[in-house]
Amino acid sequence: MKLHAMLKKDSAVALVSGGMDSCVTTAVANEKFSLALLHINYGQRTEKRELKAFTDIASYYGVPEERRLVANLDYFSKIGGSSLTDKKIDIPNLIVGACFKPAPTHNEIPTTYVPFRNAQFLSIAVSWAEVIGAEAVFIGAVEQDSPGYPDCRQVFYDAFNKLVEVGTKPETHIKVVTPLIGMSKTEIVKKGISVNAPLHLTWSCYKNNDVACGKCHSCVLRLTAFSDAGVKDTIPYLL
Amino acid sequence: MKLHAMLKKDSAVALVSGGMDSCVTTAVANEKFSLALLHINYGQRTEKRELKAFTDIASYYGVPEERRLVANLDYFSKIGGSSLTDKKIDIPNLIVGACFKPAPTHNEIPTTYVPFRNAQFLSIAVSWAEVIGAEAVFIGAVEQDSPGYPDCRQVFYDAFNKLVEVGTKPETHIKVVTPLIGMSKTEIVKKGISVNAPLHLTWSCYKNNDVACGKCHSCVLRLTAFSDAGVKDTIPYLL
Repeated sequence: MKLHAMLKKDSAVALVSGGMDSCVTTAVANEKFSLALLHINYGQRTEKRELKAFTDIASYYGVPEERRLVANLDYFSKIGGSSLTDKKIDIPNLIVGACFKPAPTHNEIPTTYVPFRNAQFLSIAVSWAEVIGAEAVFIGAVEQDSPGYPDCRQVFYDAFNKLVEVGTKPETHIKVVTPLIGMSKTEIVKKGISVNAPLHLTWSCYKNNDVACGKCHSCVLRLTAFSDAGVKDTIPYLL
Repeated sequence: MKLHAMLKKDSAVALVSGGMDSCVTTAVANEKFSLALLHINYGQRTEKRELKAFTDIASYYGVPEERRLVANLDYFSKIGGSSLTDKKIDIPNLIVGACFKPAPTHNEIPTTYVPFRNAQFLSIAVSWAEVIGAEAVFIGAVEQDSPGYPDCRQVFYDAFNKLVEVGTKPETHIKVVTPLIGMSKTEIVKKGISVNAPLHLTWSCYKNNDVACGKCHSCVLRLTAFSDAGVKDTIPYLL
């Protein structure tokens, strides 16, 4: 609160997974708000590399330690039902940012799906936002990444904003903002460039931790988006 | 899923803190549903004793291990702003069950308040409910415990149910149920007796872990409620 009072701009909490979407979302938030960055470890396979990307992005924006929050959730693997946290289940496709890649056939539910995951993440973000007096919560949800997916649609965020309205103190006016919700991956790269997002610090590969494989579904999507946007992706690739 | 299919009754997830309200709520849920019990550790001062109460209640109802979920959240103390998780802040009053006792003057916000806490707990419960195919989530929220408190009012649970409706798969119909929301503490004791809730296994004292002090705000409230209901409280008291 004291810190917030000293800051010139209003504050916003941005959820930063370490992927491209959350990085661009953070860059958009940074244009109008003083940043507070939230990262969530929930036993996902690439947890360590994603945490490094989060730290790098936070440092890039000069976010002080007290405005960074890393939450550790141990229960996702206990809840199970997702290849994302259960190593016994194969990953056919993967998460980037706040939503899920579609399965090869769009009617299938990918095994990476964790029901109501974004409600959990947003609830933590709103709780922190209320404590530090932030005005907004930014999340890099992308509807196109997961057609039909309940927690990646605008209607879900509208309902969440109503919950925030009745579930927080009357004097607060926290809004959940989804600046990328209607964009394609290529549009996200272009947007990232236009707002100087540090895309070189993000990580998308789900196989490697040091040099991206360039072959996995996520790498291919990313490389295609950069190529379509006419921009060079400067992270290291094996290929 | 397999387990659920074998059960005769529909399943419900009940949030069990180990206090009286959540115990009675569990007993109400048990009348119509097959129980799955969720307990959340979030660095609260009486964490260990509450966990024991959870385990005792789960055993009383014969809930198998795979239908018990203990979630550990480490970030509450990092978010701070609450005497509940920050030992530097005094506790003037305390939590029982899912909501907060009023401060001595009802207009004050008690330091135990953790913004949007119930949204976080419910999100975990709904996520688990979707994975195990449960039909309902039971929470022992009591409006009277916390007049004006955002996340203990019926309007909050109505908004949460709308979020669940749009945020879970179309084929699911999970409802959040608050059977005690309008009750007084005395009515809760009476209800507990009528549904055979194992109140002797619950814990309310926030000072002691073995023998209740009988003097703290929570003990006094509990003893008064039992006395008004004309029922003997059989947990051990110092007095």
